[in-house]
Amino acid sequence: MAEKIVVALGGNALQSGKSEPTAEAQLAVVKETCERLADLSEKGYEIVVVHGNGPQVGRILLASETAKDVTPAMPFDVCGAMSQGYIGYHLQQALKFALANRGINMPVVTLLTQMVVDQNDPAFQNPTKPIGAFYSEEEAKQLAETKGFTMKEDAGRGWRRVVASPIPTEIVELDSVLKLMDTTVVITCGGGGIPVLRKENGDLEGTAAVIDKDFAAELLAEKVEADALMILTEVEKVAINFNKPDQEDLAHMTYAEAEKHCADGQFAPGSMLPKVMAAMKFVKANPGKKAIITSLAKAIDALEGKTGTVVTFE
Amino acid sequence: MAEKIVVALGGNALQSGKSEPTAEAQLAVVKETCERLADLSEKGYEIVVVHGNGPQVGRILLASETAKDVTPAMPFDVCGAMSQGYIGYHLQQALKFALANRGINMPVVTLLTQMVVDQNDPAFQNPTKPIGAFYSEEEAKQLAETKGFTMKEDAGRGWRRVVASPIPTEIVELDSVLKLMDTTVVITCGGGGIPVLRKENGDLEGTAAVIDKDFAAELLAEKVEADALMILTEVEKVAINFNKPDQEDLAHMTYAEAEKHCADGQFAPGSMLPKVMAAMKFVKANPGKKAIITSLAKAIDALEGKTGTVVTFE
Repeated sequence: MAEKIVVALGGNALQSGKSEPTAEAQLAVVKETCERLADLSEKGYEIVVVHGNGPQVGRILLASETAKDVTPAMPFDVCGAMSQGYIGYHLQQALKFALANRGINMPVVTLLTQMVVDQNDPAFQNPTKPIGAFYSEEEAKQLAETKGFTMKEDAGRGWRRVVASPIPTEIVELDSVLKLMDTTVVITCGGGGIPVLRKENGDLEGTAAVIDKDFAAELLAEKVEADALMILTEVEKVAINFNKPDQEDLAHMTYAEAEKHCADGQFAPGSMLPKVMAAMKFVKANPGKKAIITSLAKAIDALEGKTGTVVTFE
Repeated sequence: MAEKIVVALGGNALQSGKSEPTAEAQLAVVKETCERLADLSEKGYEIVVVHGNGPQVGRILLASETAKDVTPAMPFDVCGAMSQGYIGYHLQQALKFALANRGINMPVVTLLTQMVVDQNDPAFQNPTKPIGAFYSEEEAKQLAETKGFTMKEDAGRGWRRVVASPIPTEIVELDSVLKLMDTTVVITCGGGGIPVLRKENGDLEGTAAVIDKDFAAELLAEKVEADALMILTEVEKVAINFNKPDQEDLAHMTYAEAEKHCADGQFAPGSMLPKVMAAMKFVKANPGKKAIITSLAKAIDALEGKTGTVVTFE
């Protein structure tokens, strides 16, 4: 049986900091990324792909708000759905080709994915994620009054809307992932999934929230019973004392060690911290399994135990 | 065995002419549409859903071009992918709920879908579909020179880019539709599919084109071996001598009759003509099967032979 791996792609797998944030530049980076993903398939791993969408959904929202006098602005949940279309299209096109070039005739498809979050998640009491355009204080007050947005001043650059980053609780389209994944490379939970709340009558309703793609990938890895959760980022290994003279790259962390490093403030919020926390969540739910944090280039070596940071429960 | 029906939704199934073109207004219309689609499932039909995207992709492109000095404008193929995200999200959310309310616990999922078109399609020699913003003659000339766009003057309102409307030839993600459709309501080929060309090395490349959703639904109906192609629009029946004193609503057309009406110019290009032509294509490829053109409200009655225009080969 092939090892099942849920692969979470970070922002650097989609866009280079060196080039303009155009669709053409994204496609060029995605093509490179898909060569590495195809390497995993060629090695016999069964992969399910999750990706982030921070810069992309930000630009979709910005374009929408900028053009609002010409055509109505889109709500944030719809912007998330649009970003799944944008990124998923590039990934499925490039990955299909990279696989075909290796003689692997495997379908690749993006499933639009909704992710249920809990209205009682404490994150909704303290929204922290800035989204969209900058506004003057006066505009910000008006948006707060008329639309109920939470607006915060952003480091002297102006006012921005902030939204919550709740923990995902349910992948609405999970059934379809399960039906396809044995034969098909599935791209799902893009950008962490389109955030929706479940109303009392069972209906879903889009909400403005930012779901961390690492926690989305973690939930997915649990639900598809993946053998490993692999979180790909810019660095080969997780480090403690990062960027200090005594920086130490970690080949392995137990749950307890990771917990201690988190408590010591070793990992940056919004960066390495959610990755380590998602890895911890996965191995706690599956004490016999592993999570790996490494770079795209080192993914296979890490799966073979040669590098990366492996997180296990004990 | 359940009858398999490919349902093509027209613009009126997504947006009302009476309200603002907002996402909220779209969702309200989509909820009504999904009640009617759920009726079909409840009656035992196995449905696959295709939808148009004309107004939606137009507004996405317009927002993107309007905001181009703030964030790079998106190419048209990416706008198409984004529109699949936008519309598919609303449809899958509303249809799942409408089914659940009828006690049908059936998954619903949108597959991002690429559609191959042929570079040698004669449509590419004569682009006719206007997309995006209006420009001055000077701007239009510059766009033609710098980007290679075909620009045409649009009825005194300014200059617009025009793109081709080729016939679709291959549904890239067909495998996944086939694997899911027995157990899942699949939404696919949205907006006719994201238009792509197949390069000599086998790779796909997005292109600026408008694929008619009726022809996309026709190809899909052939490939999934649907029992019927059902094209839903604003009218209950196709008419000849439309809007004239001797208007005649048609309960049935053979291929030969439809061919004659087309030759007589009975059907408006870009409106009823592609619907009739898609219906003709389906019954020619499947002489024992039927295509139906009717309104969303009359879909079940039409399937039961009580109304609508049924097209058969003989």
